[in-house]
Amino acid sequence: MSDQKKSKIEARSPRGLADRDAAELAAAGRMIDVIRSVYELYGFEALETPAIEYTDALGKFLPDQDRPNEGVFSFQDDDEQWLSLRYDLTAPLARYVAQNFDRLPKPYRSYRFGNVYRNEKPGPGRFRQFMQFDADTVGAASPAADAEICMMAADTLEKLGIPRGDYVIKINSRKVLDGVMKAIGLEGDENAGRRLTVLRAIDKMDRLGPEGVRQLLGPGRKDESGDFTKGAGLSNQQASLIIDFLGLRTRVETGDIARKSRMNPEDIYVEPPNRFLSGPIKTTLTEAIRILFAGAGSAILSEGIDELNAIAEQIRAAGYDDGRIIIDPSVVRGLEYYTGPVFEAELTFETKDEKGHPVRFGSVGGGGRYDGLIGRFRSDNTPATGFSIGVSRLYAALKLVGSPVVSAAARLGPVVVLALDRDHIADYQRMVAALRNAGVSAELYLGSSGMKAQMKYADKRNSPAVVIQGSDERAKGEVQIKDLIEGARASAAIATNEEWKSARPAQFSAPESELVEHIKALLARQG
Amino acid sequence: MSDQKKSKIEARSPRGLADRDAAELAAAGRMIDVIRSVYELYGFEALETPAIEYTDALGKFLPDQDRPNEGVFSFQDDDEQWLSLRYDLTAPLARYVAQNFDRLPKPYRSYRFGNVYRNEKPGPGRFRQFMQFDADTVGAASPAADAEICMMAADTLEKLGIPRGDYVIKINSRKVLDGVMKAIGLEGDENAGRRLTVLRAIDKMDRLGPEGVRQLLGPGRKDESGDFTKGAGLSNQQASLIIDFLGLRTRVETGDIARKSRMNPEDIYVEPPNRFLSGPIKTTLTEAIRILFAGAGSAILSEGIDELNAIAEQIRAAGYDDGRIIIDPSVVRGLEYYTGPVFEAELTFETKDEKGHPVRFGSVGGGGRYDGLIGRFRSDNTPATGFSIGVSRLYAALKLVGSPVVSAAARLGPVVVLALDRDHIADYQRMVAALRNAGVSAELYLGSSGMKAQMKYADKRNSPAVVIQGSDERAKGEVQIKDLIEGARASAAIATNEEWKSARPAQFSAPESELVEHIKALLARQG
Repeated sequence: MSDQKKSKIEARSPRGLADRDAAELAAAGRMIDVIRSVYELYGFEALETPAIEYTDALGKFLPDQDRPNEGVFSFQDDDEQWLSLRYDLTAPLARYVAQNFDRLPKPYRSYRFGNVYRNEKPGPGRFRQFMQFDADTVGAASPAADAEICMMAADTLEKLGIPRGDYVIKINSRKVLDGVMKAIGLEGDENAGRRLTVLRAIDKMDRLGPEGVRQLLGPGRKDESGDFTKGAGLSNQQASLIIDFLGLRTRVETGDIARKSRMNPEDIYVEPPNRFLSGPIKTTLTEAIRILFAGAGSAILSEGIDELNAIAEQIRAAGYDDGRIIIDPSVVRGLEYYTGPVFEAELTFETKDEKGHPVRFGSVGGGGRYDGLIGRFRSDNTPATGFSIGVSRLYAALKLVGSPVVSAAARLGPVVVLALDRDHIADYQRMVAALRNAGVSAELYLGSSGMKAQMKYADKRNSPAVVIQGSDERAKGEVQIKDLIEGARASAAIATNEEWKSARPAQFSAPESELVEHIKALLARQG
Repeated sequence: MSDQKKSKIEARSPRGLADRDAAELAAAGRMIDVIRSVYELYGFEALETPAIEYTDALGKFLPDQDRPNEGVFSFQDDDEQWLSLRYDLTAPLARYVAQNFDRLPKPYRSYRFGNVYRNEKPGPGRFRQFMQFDADTVGAASPAADAEICMMAADTLEKLGIPRGDYVIKINSRKVLDGVMKAIGLEGDENAGRRLTVLRAIDKMDRLGPEGVRQLLGPGRKDESGDFTKGAGLSNQQASLIIDFLGLRTRVETGDIARKSRMNPEDIYVEPPNRFLSGPIKTTLTEAIRILFAGAGSAILSEGIDELNAIAEQIRAAGYDDGRIIIDPSVVRGLEYYTGPVFEAELTFETKDEKGHPVRFGSVGGGGRYDGLIGRFRSDNTPATGFSIGVSRLYAALKLVGSPVVSAAARLGPVVVLALDRDHIADYQRMVAALRNAGVSAELYLGSSGMKAQMKYADKRNSPAVVIQGSDERAKGEVQIKDLIEGARASAAIATNEEWKSARPAQFSAPESELVEHIKALLARQG
């Protein structure tokens, strides 16, 4: 080492990567415990996969190139193979199932939680490392598996403290959306790009409403800031059909999808959304979709509707047909790999957006059926369906609704034994050890500052009490115990209630041999 | 998508990156809860930092180069800055403290657990992703902080189920080692390489014994396989001094360091290790070090000995002077940043090495004082000391000693409702929902196989019971409940104890309306 002064490195984190303190970790820990308990009630078992995977196993190479997608963090191993940090918890599950196929029970129900990494531009509430909590059923083609995942999502939100009515689990079907694309003539590889633009437009129904979506389906849309988003270039007739399709959701007002899906035409009143429905009729939402596309129906549309009906039947049988779970034609889900039903867990209460405008809180999780994902590794196409919760985003929501899961009172810190006399550190340490042996969280003040700073430290740690022994107390074999909670109360009340203060003093002497009993009694009084 | 068949990707993980199943995760979760509870008893609070940091903040650039050390996983951000996966939990803590210095209480006691990543060659028990559990006290120069960390390590191992006597926390001092280097003339930048070789040799004392270490200190050593390790090239006299120094440990036989450190010459009998001690004398270990180097003492050696004595005094005061914590001159700890006391938690019971030879289990954690690490970011050198547990390695140890923390009985899986009749899936689902609503982990069999495969599935899931309803039972409004635990017992006993079997039948009918009560009673019987 030379004597030359080195320039200091700036202490900083890369953007989108956050530290989490004790309060946030305790709340997140309670959240995870609740989610886990619900998932285990449903028969799912824990699994953990590493954060690093082969890039090809994640399916994260750029199309027609030998380098990974820019959205993932990637690096080469010493044998030149590309590695990536996992982008979600689904692709690693597919790898795990394919690798351990023969020894796993089938269907295989697993849950996983952990951090995922996205090499994307971070923003408010958008991180490059964040936690997901997933559950998946692999090897079950039955719509009962999809229905169950949705019911579990509903149960989880309620157990976390989201009141019934403040959330909704929405179901749609990729097959129905594919059928809609087919109905408007957007089939085939040559239309892949336009299909994506249409799906993106549909996905914005909640935010932009039918007029905004119609612009995005047609020539394009200029937003408030003047930015122009190019549209899908659909004809008026094509766009109308999609708007009518999305309109079924708002006309057949949601709230009781399972009842709606009983296929009893008396149950539901559908206003005539357009020229395809020739007048007010009563039907189910899925039947309304069938009627809407009667002129351009397809096998895929029909399959999708059958699946939605089967899911709806399960939901009704299990008693979730009270608005907790609904069918919503505007649910898209971004990921490419979904093949059938897709789910979205949405919180419906209002909050404020970045500009202070009131908005629905929105999505806190989603999922769907991805029958092709494990087939990347195996010649049989193992069916699979799953659901993923965005833990950080849900944490923000739970704070907003004041859920007890995340808003428990601040925990008390340790009892602090002050270190007033440098020659007696070992004596203080002995008191601390006695408290700890009795199960009381305690510590010796380990800094080098004086009494005032030590008291301030105890306050900052949210300590319930401090223990003081100067030379006078030591001579008498005593300690001073100061109740910091009572002390704070007393000092607030002192002007108006001197008597009360003198009756319950916040500071008292006790024989050192009775330190543990007195501290335990004090903690019990504080509750 | 073309019709051409795509070649399948092989489902595999990069080497050194392991999946963890439900049993291992449950055990690790219990371990973490125990460690956390001890650390909180000591007044440490939780913190979590992200897995990705700026490479320079971790101090992981190669010397005199602009690229990161090969031992870390690194990649460039889109602004060309180098990022790395954290290599340990200490460097990120230093970054965090420097970044949040003013608002943190000081001393700042934090614990952190999480995965760390090493881009090194994996081997048996050596992974490229593994979990550490750290505790650190920042802003306390007092040896009481070091002593406390060692006591906490001892408490943690006992709470995890390692019996007293099967572990030892060893303390040494980098300052003492520096003093030893000085005493044999290995000062200065020009000897940095040789010092490292000497420290590596000292570190092997446990494995190779004095003769092996002497070879490594001198010309070098050929191991059993014939591989030659170049030595430090010390003279015989230099090597003898170090062997004598290390010998103090075995002569002043450990077991009661605190008593040894009371500086009472009557306490300890030291055999004459060499020409420096002129005959059998009684002294403390630290005093013996002072005598050994009387001819070549230095300020740094003296400082180191004083610190060890101060730590020993604390340990005695808190009652840990019974062999739980000892001073051991051979403890080195590999990391470059330690500046004072260093600690090693070692399990002393025997196990087998890779070749089946009996060996001590060895280290499960370590740490030390690193007063310079936060100084990389700040002009004041904030003192700090800490300890890190290797969770995976400790997990292996706990399994070996049969600790109840990791060897709890296999958990029962969910009650499985068989899906015998495809037209009545919704009815089965309703039974499952009733069980779940009563807090019973339950699931509907979601696969497409027949009754035999469904029973096999329930066995594989370790289910306590299955619920069966075929058309006969449905007609009568009944279900069959099969107790799988009792059933296994009964079938084992059937040849010898038919009566007992008939008295407690493993399968019985019950009205469907009483399903929940019967299952709850069955689970209660199973305990």
